[in-house]
Amino acid sequence: MAKKLVGAALLGQSGGPTSVINASAAGVFLEALKHEEITEVYGAAHGIKGILDENFYDIKKEDVKELERLKYTPSSAIGSVRYKLADYKKDPTDYNRLLEVFKKYNIRYFFYNGGNDSMDTCLKISKFMKKSGWECRVMGVPKTIDNDLAGIDHSPGYGSAAKYVATSIMELILDGTVYNTQQFVVVEVMGRNAGWLTAAAALPSIQGFRPDYIYLPEQPFDMDKFYEQVGSVLKTGKSCFVVVSEGAKTKEGKYLAELEAEVARDAFGHANLGGAGQFLANQIKNKFGVKTRAIEFSLLQRAAAHIASQTDINEAFKVGQLAVKKAVNGSTDKFVGIVRVPGEKYKVKFPLLPLHIVANAERKVPLEWILPDNKGLTQDFIDYALPLIQGETKLEKENGLPRFAKLKKVLVEKK
Amino acid sequence: MAKKLVGAALLGQSGGPTSVINASAAGVFLEALKHEEITEVYGAAHGIKGILDENFYDIKKEDVKELERLKYTPSSAIGSVRYKLADYKKDPTDYNRLLEVFKKYNIRYFFYNGGNDSMDTCLKISKFMKKSGWECRVMGVPKTIDNDLAGIDHSPGYGSAAKYVATSIMELILDGTVYNTQQFVVVEVMGRNAGWLTAAAALPSIQGFRPDYIYLPEQPFDMDKFYEQVGSVLKTGKSCFVVVSEGAKTKEGKYLAELEAEVARDAFGHANLGGAGQFLANQIKNKFGVKTRAIEFSLLQRAAAHIASQTDINEAFKVGQLAVKKAVNGSTDKFVGIVRVPGEKYKVKFPLLPLHIVANAERKVPLEWILPDNKGLTQDFIDYALPLIQGETKLEKENGLPRFAKLKKVLVEKK
Repeated sequence: MAKKLVGAALLGQSGGPTSVINASAAGVFLEALKHEEITEVYGAAHGIKGILDENFYDIKKEDVKELERLKYTPSSAIGSVRYKLADYKKDPTDYNRLLEVFKKYNIRYFFYNGGNDSMDTCLKISKFMKKSGWECRVMGVPKTIDNDLAGIDHSPGYGSAAKYVATSIMELILDGTVYNTQQFVVVEVMGRNAGWLTAAAALPSIQGFRPDYIYLPEQPFDMDKFYEQVGSVLKTGKSCFVVVSEGAKTKEGKYLAELEAEVARDAFGHANLGGAGQFLANQIKNKFGVKTRAIEFSLLQRAAAHIASQTDINEAFKVGQLAVKKAVNGSTDKFVGIVRVPGEKYKVKFPLLPLHIVANAERKVPLEWILPDNKGLTQDFIDYALPLIQGETKLEKENGLPRFAKLKKVLVEKK
Repeated sequence: MAKKLVGAALLGQSGGPTSVINASAAGVFLEALKHEEITEVYGAAHGIKGILDENFYDIKKEDVKELERLKYTPSSAIGSVRYKLADYKKDPTDYNRLLEVFKKYNIRYFFYNGGNDSMDTCLKISKFMKKSGWECRVMGVPKTIDNDLAGIDHSPGYGSAAKYVATSIMELILDGTVYNTQQFVVVEVMGRNAGWLTAAAALPSIQGFRPDYIYLPEQPFDMDKFYEQVGSVLKTGKSCFVVVSEGAKTKEGKYLAELEAEVARDAFGHANLGGAGQFLANQIKNKFGVKTRAIEFSLLQRAAAHIASQTDINEAFKVGQLAVKKAVNGSTDKFVGIVRVPGEKYKVKFPLLPLHIVANAERKVPLEWILPDNKGLTQDFIDYALPLIQGETKLEKENGLPRFAKLKKVLVEKK
């Protein structure tokens, strides 16, 4: 049993949001409120930025019912940030300021919810606090729709985004059969370097809904092969439906969106038009003269809590809750992982793992799970991803619309 | 009591699909299968086109359980078409062919499911059959996400699309609060001439989610006013979130999408880039240098059956069912309307209305329901639209994904 550490707990949210990042916040907050050694529960407004600026929300002022509703509320309820701490040796300013603020508010428990960059931040803070002699338990809480965190089976946030992608792909494939005119439809899915979310477009194949081609960033995008593949469908008279990752790159390492931006920059002097999908639609229109449509899931895929996976919600809540429980019991310098227990039935456990495993690492879709010629994903991928999208969200409705959490967000008076 | 008319029943789907157009098909098919005077139940593959080509699906060969699932299945299960019948006096070819086919297959009941154009088709066919002496009961079944059908309270399809729009707008507004950096987000919603669906973005205001501005096609789009409005939000340091109809037009009558296409055509020689939303995002980026994002709901808004309104599903089924019941009882040359019964509680009745009321007419959002300065919609609109999005779809799930209807689509042997 670790020594009892008395002081305030602080949560920061970092990086891009997910449908369930607030479920982890609910886990942290509701658990923290239960422990007498945790004197105050704070939420940092916009992650590290909120700490540097001393902008803390007083979670004890919130209604517990609304904190419960955070489980089903997308986006970052206390605000997120993209902020990379400098190397301490190069610039210790931020570190010294963090220490100052931690001391001023007696922060003894620090939870940071984010992806690989954020786990790196967590690791840096943890090391610095230890070196400075400020006793503080630092825990990482993983999240990302990209599912690219190393060392764990999957990340909270992925299952819900995957469920959105798979469901929407089914609906769009059906929509594509409406007219008896030929068309080319391309759907662009998020995931800058890893194709996990794009791969979710293969899940509906278990119900017979199969995109013609799926292009992941794990393999170089070959324009000639692409023309050949699309052309082979179009020449049968059928329509063609493909899914492409925003991170698809040519073998020269250029993002398709960059190619589109180059065309746009040449023409307009700015680079703010379509992405990978629009680029491909334009190329197919020019080459085959067929009707095209590019659909971008855009922010919807990370925000569509109405179609979140309840499995994902439960796990996201659990990692937040466990981070607090374990920290109170003495753990520090770790993050809460998710590991699948082998067996017929889907089951996971939540071990504590060292932060350096995940910090700045990136996990990609195994090449052996990708079918040849961009024909989709193997059964191994389906077996992996399908359990993660199970369960319908228990999101409460009011007047036919989601009833998301309404926080008071009372700022703590600056000391 | 009308004379008993014995023969085959035929349904055609026409125009753009909705999340619930197949619910009306389910209503027609399941009801038609019950009546002994209806000897065969056919679905025309791709509407009028399927009749001209004698491509009929034999609905008696379908599993009733799958026909039931049509209630929850988006897109046009038997295929739709955009086909305008010529004026009979100018070109009677199609009419004569339709009569020939109706006689060959003994079609005595004809149901056509579509919007104002399709009701016009229905009217033309009805008149021609009467003139030709072929006894056939012709009934229109209304549908459109645009909600622009004249003479009725609302159209099947609108409630579900509105629920999708309202829900997604809530999620996107939340997503917009994630970072503490300023941005301009514009969401483009379908509706070429009527702003009903774009107006649905005002529904979340009942829960405190309010886009800064909503631009409907009912009012001319004024670029200067737009810059002023967006600028007034941006200068406070806040982000700006607007919703625009794809049908927004300048006072010179140009669609915003046309303006974008002109820029694109000048640059690329083709007009296939962004629409109204992308155009506005580009302008704001150029003028204010702020980060922008254009989101197009695209086909998702007409296909997202997973978030359909159960009220809409029930009504869409009912209009299909009633069309058959009434036709069997002798009605013809009508369409099944939806009229709201005055009173506290939402209640509708389904009167038969003459086809000419709706044929080629267009109903727009009343100007008195639009708040000044594009600030959204009045309470009258909310009171009108809110009941239409009530009720969560009973769509069955299988493995965490929708279980849509799987039809065998057995073609009838050509006679």
